[in-house]
Order: sequence, then structure tokens, then C-alpha cells
Amino acid sequence: MTAYTAPLRDFDFLLHEVLDVSHAGIPGYDALDRETTAAIHTEAARLAEEVLAPLNAVGDTEGCRLENGEVFTPTGFAAAFRKLAEGGWIALDCDEAFGGTGMPYLMNCTTGEMFVAANMALNMYQGLTHGAISALQVHGTPDQQARYLPNMVAGRWTGTMNLTEPQCGTDLGLIRTRAEPQDDGSYAITGQKIWISGGEHDMAENIVHLVLAKIPGGPKGTKGISLFVVPKFLVNDDGSLGTRNGVACVGLESKMGIHGASTCVMAYEGARGWLVGEEHGGLKAMFTMMNEARLGVGLQGYAVAARAHQAAVAFARDRLQGRAVTGARNPEGPADPIIVHPDVRRMLMDQRAFVEGARAFACWGATLIDRAHRAQDADAEALISLLTPVLKGFLTDRGFETCVGAQQVPGGTGYVQSAGFEQFTRDARIAMIYEGTNGIQALDLVGRKLAQNGGKAMMAFFEQIRAETRAEADDRLRADFHEPLKAASKDLQVAVGVFMETGMKSPEEALAGAADFLRMMGHVCLGLMWARMARAAAAGLAAGGGDADFYRAKLVTGRHYMRRALPETGLLLARIRAGGETVMALEAEAF
Amino acid sequence: MTAYTAPLRDFDFLLHEVLDVSHAGIPGYDALDRETTAAIHTEAARLAEEVLAPLNAVGDTEGCRLENGEVFTPTGFAAAFRKLAEGGWIALDCDEAFGGTGMPYLMNCTTGEMFVAANMALNMYQGLTHGAISALQVHGTPDQQARYLPNMVAGRWTGTMNLTEPQCGTDLGLIRTRAEPQDDGSYAITGQKIWISGGEHDMAENIVHLVLAKIPGGPKGTKGISLFVVPKFLVNDDGSLGTRNGVACVGLESKMGIHGASTCVMAYEGARGWLVGEEHGGLKAMFTMMNEARLGVGLQGYAVAARAHQAAVAFARDRLQGRAVTGARNPEGPADPIIVHPDVRRMLMDQRAFVEGARAFACWGATLIDRAHRAQDADAEALISLLTPVLKGFLTDRGFETCVGAQQVPGGTGYVQSAGFEQFTRDARIAMIYEGTNGIQALDLVGRKLAQNGGKAMMAFFEQIRAETRAEADDRLRADFHEPLKAASKDLQVAVGVFMETGMKSPEEALAGAADFLRMMGHVCLGLMWARMARAAAAGLAAGGGDADFYRAKLVTGRHYMRRALPETGLLLARIRAGGETVMALEAEAF
Repeated sequence: MTAYTAPLRDFDFLLHEVLDVSHAGIPGYDALDRETTAAIHTEAARLAEEVLAPLNAVGDTEGCRLENGEVFTPTGFAAAFRKLAEGGWIALDCDEAFGGTGMPYLMNCTTGEMFVAANMALNMYQGLTHGAISALQVHGTPDQQARYLPNMVAGRWTGTMNLTEPQCGTDLGLIRTRAEPQDDGSYAITGQKIWISGGEHDMAENIVHLVLAKIPGGPKGTKGISLFVVPKFLVNDDGSLGTRNGVACVGLESKMGIHGASTCVMAYEGARGWLVGEEHGGLKAMFTMMNEARLGVGLQGYAVAARAHQAAVAFARDRLQGRAVTGARNPEGPADPIIVHPDVRRMLMDQRAFVEGARAFACWGATLIDRAHRAQDADAEALISLLTPVLKGFLTDRGFETCVGAQQVPGGTGYVQSAGFEQFTRDARIAMIYEGTNGIQALDLVGRKLAQNGGKAMMAFFEQIRAETRAEADDRLRADFHEPLKAASKDLQVAVGVFMETGMKSPEEALAGAADFLRMMGHVCLGLMWARMARAAAAGLAAGGGDADFYRAKLVTGRHYMRRALPETGLLLARIRAGGETVMALEAEAF
Repeated sequence: MTAYTAPLRDFDFLLHEVLDVSHAGIPGYDALDRETTAAIHTEAARLAEEVLAPLNAVGDTEGCRLENGEVFTPTGFAAAFRKLAEGGWIALDCDEAFGGTGMPYLMNCTTGEMFVAANMALNMYQGLTHGAISALQVHGTPDQQARYLPNMVAGRWTGTMNLTEPQCGTDLGLIRTRAEPQDDGSYAITGQKIWISGGEHDMAENIVHLVLAKIPGGPKGTKGISLFVVPKFLVNDDGSLGTRNGVACVGLESKMGIHGASTCVMAYEGARGWLVGEEHGGLKAMFTMMNEARLGVGLQGYAVAARAHQAAVAFARDRLQGRAVTGARNPEGPADPIIVHPDVRRMLMDQRAFVEGARAFACWGATLIDRAHRAQDADAEALISLLTPVLKGFLTDRGFETCVGAQQVPGGTGYVQSAGFEQFTRDARIAMIYEGTNGIQALDLVGRKLAQNGGKAMMAFFEQIRAETRAEADDRLRADFHEPLKAASKDLQVAVGVFMETGMKSPEEALAGAADFLRMMGHVCLGLMWARMARAAAAGLAAGGGDADFYRAKLVTGRHYMRRALPETGLLLARIRAGGETVMALEAEAF
């Protein structure tokens, strides 16, 4: 089993030295001074390190169990969830009108990283609940909000999102679940939903399902989908729980990982539900949850990787094997710690450069969300909309690769269950798949977001890079950070040009390179983050003080990213230029 | 569960159209005419498809069980192993003096791919047995050979290799297991070995352990290691089984994958053993097994990937979701099969281009081994020695990535255990670790093999590329295959130059780029294979006949590799040039 230590210094650096949040001019951010964020992070870290992390292996080993329609979560999960709820962590950025704390989403992001790193499976129950809260906050009627939100925000009840059916995953137009209008204004929901996270469990008094279904007689395809709220127990007008609704968990999936998260087959048999948002407007309402979920999944990608990297470092410092090629470093011992070996360090530095860059990217993304929502800033909204598929796709792809790399450091120990490494790899794998596979993210990026509003958001992104590389900097920063960033950004611009040229003639040409483009853009985002962090670290170093080692390590890690990771943009551009000919040439039968 | 179909046409193409084995001038190869190899492959395919493949999921689900020192393998494993043995598949390339068939190693490679693809865990019992047979064939005394080999070749007894101890994996100099000389010429072996594949099971009458141990008073470190044969049951002079030896399985590892393969903790308590090879010459003797095992592991890497790719293709043809961007292809159905989508095809083609290239690389490697062993060709020996770490490291790294890619095609289904995809990912993960982690392979390549004999083998490798690109070819083959191969080979040459320059000054500089170099060399190997296959396919196409679709698909797949995969050499060169500064800069405490 591996311990977990929250990256408190890194959060402080990002929020106050890189993003300078308390002077960012975003409503609510002026309260985020150094002491306040430190107090919140320290509290969340304690919960993550002491309560959630020790249950991570337990959850994996025990998994969930279905008996007579009831789902039992692993030992300790219910008690830990209670602590999450009672600590106010679900409520952190929820509306104060429903009992929330009203903090910026940014704080949800930083504390969420710790909770996910400590125990990804356990945190899913609160993540899904949070998404359902957001959907009801935006699309619910005042009655629905009053009926459901206070208990959800308090974590007494949890929430779910019900999209997938056996015949329909990505293509929601194929949904068969029916919602028959009843005389009292409610609907009778009938159908089967699969892969429902937290669809049933023993950690809350009630479960509030948000369900996509079709009202008979509506338009075909996705235009005929509506969203319904379907509680496990009906809620009386006085807020007390009423009778059991016609919804039940009829199966649990055995999965590669996240065993502590129940993944349910849900049967709706004339369950009572109420319309959320507009009739046939379900997709729009669901996307409030979905966009939030995608950011949350991106966060999962790098958070699990951060934990896996920590474990790899601890192993590499501890394990004695072989001698340094330049001479023994631990001559009294039987061998040197393997962290002396260049290839082990290469793996550790690759991991570290990704994790710290990803953390900055997620935090920056969170400030864009806050700026969009709290300051009604349409430019920020457009930019985060462009970046959402990148945050989801790039951070989960690279996060998984980072877990695989961390698993490689301890050799055979990485393959043995009790050591914990292989669980990170198995858990992280799902993040590339759910809430829209990473292929779907790439399609969203290239097929929709890129050209939206005449490519305005993309131009704003390039402007961010230009602004950074125009910032005051010494020759070293220019050579180590600005020049590589400019080169990578140039590759990205050329790729946009290729798409503009070919996409008109053949959408297949452009879409064959969509995944490459998403990855390229992810690298440029992390390159931008590293340029910003390097500037802040250089400033910190120049200011003197006791943190010189921290800043120097930041600069080394950043250079590592710029030299070793960022040049992948050239390869990705070559792939995009290669186009779709070989991708599309074979008949389906020839495979 | 996924079905398995052996790639018989591909084997035929490789052996007779690309490698032209029956005219290769290697002793024993003249008998490998088209009919003979087809008959052998068809027979092996039947066993793989009908007997081994259906047990793959069973093995994963049931795993192995330890009770009172006995290990029970999954349902059906023992009977299937019997069929492998009785079919003569273990004996295929073993010495006829001990009951083997005496076929070339090449046939062991092609049939082995099918057995591994069908059931990697089950095939490990025979793979390890094969390795132990090889070690005894080369290093055993005539008495040891007579005593053990006939039953091992017949598969009545199995074999193991015992290297690892809790404190010692890669660094075998730290071995503590003792071998005390006895008056009768035997040794009393005492110590604990871990991660012993097939250390105990219920599929054979006896288990022949080959064990590394130290004879007290010998030299320190790896120079004091000797190899011993330690049977589970002592073998009487008449060949009958005698008393139980002092060796027992005291634990089973719970692992990420290959659940059907027992991974044992073995306790030796004064077990009787006999020296194999020379006193203190154990490492050399063990490397006979180890080199064979490394090739076998490389084969595992791409064989599991081949199976995973097949499953992904089947899913993509079948699953209806969304519409082709250029218009419905299945207008009568509710949606199009997902194989119409460019990003799905991109994944499938990436997988296919790797798998087919890897298969060619493995078969070519096998001919080098046969040429080295059967024709005592020192140049072939040097070349395969150079290529062994590449076969092991590159094919397992890329094989795992290919399984992850195949798992991505079916979306959520890829994460659910019953669908089978996630098992391939879990099983394939070990191949990057065991028989020397891929970092150790890179160290072997860059630190030892590259400069051996003044770099003679590396020069011979470059000569292979020059010869191929000088071969007669039309403009299309030149542009599509020769030019990219030359460019990649140039990158490789530049990288060699960088190492020669920096390696002298700082070995850490060179070793920081070792993994990049191995990957680069792997790409160039597959590029060379694709150039050869393209030439053969073009010839086949020109000759006419009914196989035009096969050849055309080969050319498309090859172009896909040359355009999308091979350009990675440029990125890898950039990483090698970036050197070791950022890799080595941080103090261990700063991580």
C-alpha cells in the first residue's frame, strides 16, 4: 500500500505566484488570500491523507456487492463519505441558498485533486452528486431545487446521471427509455440504463437519478430526448421520504478498476419522474452535467497519476539495486537506491513534468470557469469550451501513460496487487473512456469547437501564447521556455491550416487527424503552463528567501518538459499532414 | 468473450514471400516448403482456436489457488496443457535425441504466437519448460540430460527458472540462496525465491527447477553465482520418481493479470540440487534461458496485441453508433457500424500496422537465431544479440500500447471484464517488466550491445537497410517505403553519433537516452520489415492471381506505418539530443 501526501506547496505556488488569484478580478476571488486557501487545502489534505487514502486498496480488493437489489460498498466507504459530506466538501462551491459554501470552482478543483488522488472510486459518489446538483441548480424548477438540493448539497442524498443503454452509448439518439406523461404532471419512466455510477449504494438516505428518456410522439433522434429527475424514494412535500420508486439496481458490472465505485444496471419500471428543463431539451440540460463531468474526469486523469508518481518516487529512493554508473553513491549499503540510475530518473522526471503541468492547466481552466460563470465573461466561456475536450482527453491519455510509467519504476513489484501500483493503472484507464471517449473529445474539438464563431476562441488561445512569450524574461527563460513554446505553437497553427484546407474538401481527412490535434493542443497548453510557471519560479528565485530549492526544481522540471515532451508536436503535425488516405482506404471487410 | 482466428495467410506470406525460407540456405530450412508449414500452422491454429482460446477468460476469472502447498490451476488448464504436450508442440524444435522434432526455431515462433494470442497465461507453462530444456541441452551433463530431458520434452514434466529473491531482482549479485556441497556431489539448496512462474501447479508429474544460488566461499557479486537443477521429486537412476525434495510453494502472488499462470514464492530448505554448467558460471548458463525468454516475451507483446486488435475489429464492424460523416452507410439500420468513423479506423490501422510489422520482425529474428545455431553463423549471432533487447523492449512496449488502443475502440465495453478487452491490457502489461524490465533492455542495448566488437553488429544492421533500399523497386515503393526508411535510419545513425560523443564523456548522458534509442531502433526495424513486405506485396500484385486484396491491404497498412509511426524517430532523436541534464539535475531529496 502506498501513502499519499498532498502537494500543498504546489497549490500555493499555482494560486498565488502563477495565477495570483486574489488579484484576478473574478468575483469571489478577492477572498482567496494565501492564508484562506492554505487553511482550506490543509483541511482537505488531512481528510485525503488520513481517511480516504487508506481506503483506496480496501475498495479495490473488496469491491461492491449486490444482494436483493441492495448494493454494499467496501468497508469504511460509507463512514468516509459521511466525513466528506460533513466537512462541507460537496457543498464547497454550491449555491449558498441550498446550504453550499459558495466558494469558487477553483477550490473544488484543488481539493478535488486531493480527494481523487487519495481514492478515485470513493470520490466518484461525490463527483456525480456534484454534477447532479449543478444540473438542478441551472435547469430545475424552484420546487425541484427546494425538494432535492439541500439534502444533496449536505451529502445526505447523492445524485447520478443516466444516459447509456445497451444499444446506445455515444449515439444518444438511439435511446429507448420512455417517459409517459401522467395526469398529475409527472411521467412514468420505463427502460434500462447501464453503467450508472453510484446508481445504488449504502451511503446515503436517498439517490436522485437524472435520467434521459423520450416522451412518446416527440422528434426522432437526439432532438426528442428529455431529462427527468427520478428519486429512489419519492420525496413528500414536507421533505420527508415517501414510498420507494419503481427503479432498482438489477446488476453490477465487474470492471477493470474503480472497484469501490458501484457501476449499476438500472431498471426503470414505470418509475415516477419529473421533467427537468424543457421538453425535448434533455441533451442541453444533460450537458451542464456533462461538461462539468468532463473537467472532473480530466482531473481524475492527472490526480491518479500524481499519486502513482509519488509512489514511484518513494520506491526509487528506497529500493537498493545495482550501482550508479559513475560510482557507488551508497558504498556502505549492498547497492545504491535505484533513483541514481538515469533511466529510472528519466521515467520519474517525465511523470513529474506532466503532473505539475497538468495541475497548472486544471487550475487555469478552473479560473476560466469561474470567470465565465461569476463575471459572465463570454470570452472566458468560449475559451474553456474550447479547452474542455483537451482537459478531458489529454489529461486522461497522458495521465494513464504516467500511471503506466510509474508502474514500471518498481519492476515486478509494479505488477503485484498488494503494492498498489497496478491499481492506479487500472483505475486511470476508465478516464480515457467515460463521459465521452477521448476519440469523441477529439471530434468535439476539431469538428465543433475549433471553427466555432469563426475560430475566435482558438485565436484567443494563440493570443495567450503570444502574450506569454512577449512577457519580460531573461535570455535563459527565452531560450529554455519561450522558444520551444513558440515552435510548438507554430506547429499547432500549421495544423489548424491543414484542417481548414482539407476539412472543407473532405471531413474524413480532418477527422483522421483529430486525436493527433487534441494531443498537440494538450502539449501546447502544458508548454504554456510551464512558461508561466518558469516565469513565476524565476521571480521567486530572484526574490530570495528559503524556497530556492523549490523554484530550482520547478525550472529543471519545466525544462525537462520543454525539451523532451513538447517536441512531440512535430510528430503529431507529421501525422496530421499524412492525412486520411491510409486510414480510410481499406474496406471494412478487409480488416 | 472474444474469438480468435490465427493469421495463417500472414504466416504463409512472411515465410514464403518475404523470407523465402525454403531457399534461405539455413540447415533444416529446405524442408520448410509451403505445404509443410501450412500443415503445421493449420494444426497449431486448430489447437489455439478451439482449445486454448476458450480457456483464456476462464483462466483470468478463476486464477490459481494454493492449498496445503499444492497449486490448482484453472478449470481446463491441465487438460489443455496435455494437448499441447501430446501434440508435440513443446518438442517442436527440441533435440531429436531427447524426443524432440528438431524443427527450426522459426516454427516455434509462429506456432508460439498463436498459442500466446489464444491464451498467454496457459502458454507460459510450456514457454518456461522450453527455456529450461534449452539450458539443460546446452549446459547439462549427459546424465542430467538423460535424466530430465525426455520427460520435459514430452511435457510430462515442466521446468522453471528461479532468479529473483525479495532483496534482489535486476541485481543478481545480491542473491542469498546458498548451495552447500554434499559428500555425494550434490548440493543442499536453502533460500527463498519469488515470482517463480509455474513454480507449483497440477499439470505435470514433476517440476524441474533451475535455481541460481551461491556456493559458500565463492567470489562476491554475480561472479559467485552458480546454477542448479532441483527437481520437485527426486529422479531415480531408472527414471522413476523418488522422494519429494525439500522445495515447496509457500505463497502465490495476486497479480494484475496472467491469473492463470501460477506465480510462486518458493522455499528451498536443504533441497537436493546438482550443479548445471560450471561452478560460479551460473549467470552464463542462466542467460541461455534468459535470451530465449526475452525473445519469447517480445513475442507475447505483439501476440496479445494481435488478439486484442482482432477483437477490436470485430466490435467495430458490429456495433452500430452514429452516422458516417460523409453520409449513412447503413441507411436501413438505426446507425452505421463504428468502423466508418475516421478516428476508429485510425486506431485500428495503428494497431494493424504494428502487429503485422512486429510479426515480420519476430519471424526475421527467428531466422537469425536458426542461422546462428544451425549454421554456426557468427554474424547472425551478433546481429540477433543486438536485436534481442529491441525485440523484447519495443514489441512489449508497443504491444501494450496496442492493447490499450484496442481496448479504446469499444468504449465502455472495453472496461468491463466479461468483454475480454481489459484482460489483454492487464496480461500484456507484465511483458514490459519481466525477464529484464524494458529499462534494462535499453541499458543492455546502449551500454553493451551497441559498441560490442567495435559496433560491428550495428554496422551490419545498417547494411541490411542499405541493401533493402538499394533493391529494385518502382517509384512508388521508393517514395512510400524507401525514402521514409532512409530518413529514419539517418536519425538512428545520428543518435549513435550522439552516444559516441557524449558516452565517452558522461555515461549518464547516454543512458538517459537509452530507452529513446531502443524505441527508435524498434521503429527502424519495423520500417525495414515494412519495406521488405511492401516489395513482396508489390511482386505478388504484379504476378496477378486471386490474392490482390491481401497485397493491396498490405501496401496500405505499410504506408500507414511509414507515414504515421516511423516519423517518431525524429522526436526520439530530439530527446536523445536533449541529453541528461534535466534527468540528472535534481537531488534525490528534491523529488
